[in-house]
Amino acid sequence: MANETEYKPIEKVSIIVSRGSLEGVYPGLIMANGARMEGIEAQLFFTFFGLEAIIDKRMDHLKVATVGNPAMHMPTIIGMLPGMSAFATRMMKKEMEKLDIPPVREFITLIHDSGCEIYACKATVDMFHLKKEDFCPEVDDIITVGEFYEKSAGAQIIFT
Amino acid sequence: MANETEYKPIEKVSIIVSRGSLEGVYPGLIMANGARMEGIEAQLFFTFFGLEAIIDKRMDHLKVATVGNPAMHMPTIIGMLPGMSAFATRMMKKEMEKLDIPPVREFITLIHDSGCEIYACKATVDMFHLKKEDFCPEVDDIITVGEFYEKSAGAQIIFT
Amino acid sequence: MANETEYKPIEKVSIIVSRGSLEGVYPGLIMANGARMEGIEAQLFFTFFGLEAIIDKRMDHLKVATVGNPAMHMPTIIGMLPGMSAFATRMMKKEMEKLDIPPVREFITLIHDSGCEIYACKATVDMFHLKKEDFCPEVDDIITVGEFYEKSAGAQIIFT
Repeated sequence: MANETEYKPIEKVSIIVSRGSLEGVYPGLIMANGARMEGIEAQLFFTFFGLEAIIDKRMDHLKVATVGNPAMHMPTIIGMLPGMSAFATRMMKKEMEKLDIPPVREFITLIHDSGCEIYACKATVDMFHLKKEDFCPEVDDIITVGEFYEKSAGAQIIFT
Repeated sequence: MANETEYKPIEKVSIIVSRGSLEGVYPGLIMANGARMEGIEAQLFFTFFGLEAIIDKRMDHLKVATVGNPAMHMPTIIGMLPGMSAFATRMMKKEMEKLDIPPVREFITLIHDSGCEIYACKATVDMFHLKKEDFCPEVDDIITVGEFYEKSAGAQIIFT
Repeated sequence: MANETEYKPIEKVSIIVSRGSLEGVYPGLIMANGARMEGIEAQLFFTFFGLEAIIDKRMDHLKVATVGNPAMHMPTIIGMLPGMSAFATRMMKKEMEKLDIPPVREFITLIHDSGCEIYACKATVDMFHLKKEDFCPEVDDIITVGEFYEKSAGAQIIFT
């Protein structure tokens, strides 16, 4: 595209992670990591079921959703068998490992170390009766929607 | 973050609600409400299953999806029991009430009263054979994608 | 809204399609098409299960998700019957045809012909062991997250 250079480059991204499945969490992490690798300022905000990805006791156990996703090419009746989600999860984790995409906990440490700030959404933290100590140490703060907007000054807001 | 103040603050948001489950609708409403509370201009666009949240006869009956969401920590076989979605919905509504987050209808009135404009997407309104009178009175207009982009001038577009 | 004209119009959109169900793919296509019709520059990026929409052998067979979406107003037990997803898919396709919204393959050709560039995400292409020749000819390139950000200069990033 000839006129690409005329445009102002992306300088900052505010990425919201709202889903708690493995395939719901990774896009936001990959986009935050990719931003930092390009020297783009990045922030990650976890809200609703996305909180799963930063809850210390749960973040190692996220699963692929095998029902409600026709792209899995799996009949619902099979997708709902107790072991299927665990199986699909193992498969996806193995493929990601081959691509050097780390597991969620390690990825969050790496992204945080690269300078990306990590926040949890206060409304949903309260709704799920969670406390600061329930989260992994990389979580910088629990913030309100108003604070989210303030921190997003100059950023592209990306809701995943 | 030291250089936060150098950036241009978020002035306006155009929030699209595309899902019809309770947990799919609330993030957009919470972000619109939070924007108005900060003096940020806000617009809400409802499209596809998100229309459920502004259809007069349905907006009081949105439900939590209990299957296809591993973050519910509920085996699919249990999640699909007829009463489970209703149960999860009651639980979420109760928690939201404790946090002073109003039910969908009341929240939409409050957000609209605070100056947020509310629009339905013409293509999906036609697809589902809906009419202006099927919607709650807060819906300002039924608009095309082109009109959506015009109204989004200067805004961050957030697809939820 | 009186002050609409004061704002800078949307000039460019970078739309990410991350879901592989019919109702997950169409919003991004409709937004890309609507942008081009308004003279707004548009790019489409397909990632994760969204790749289904540009895989030559699969793009004609996308299905509506009938479980995990309470807005379908269908008990889970019915939604999981083998024929239900096919039935809901036929219904949606028929309604879209009435509205002159083309099937996925034709829509992608039309959008591409209108000047919208189409990209596949390298990380997920590798994860699913896909190759350039697995995709429909409209796919301009397979690119990294870094390249995505470069190409998104001056654009609103919209993750669907």
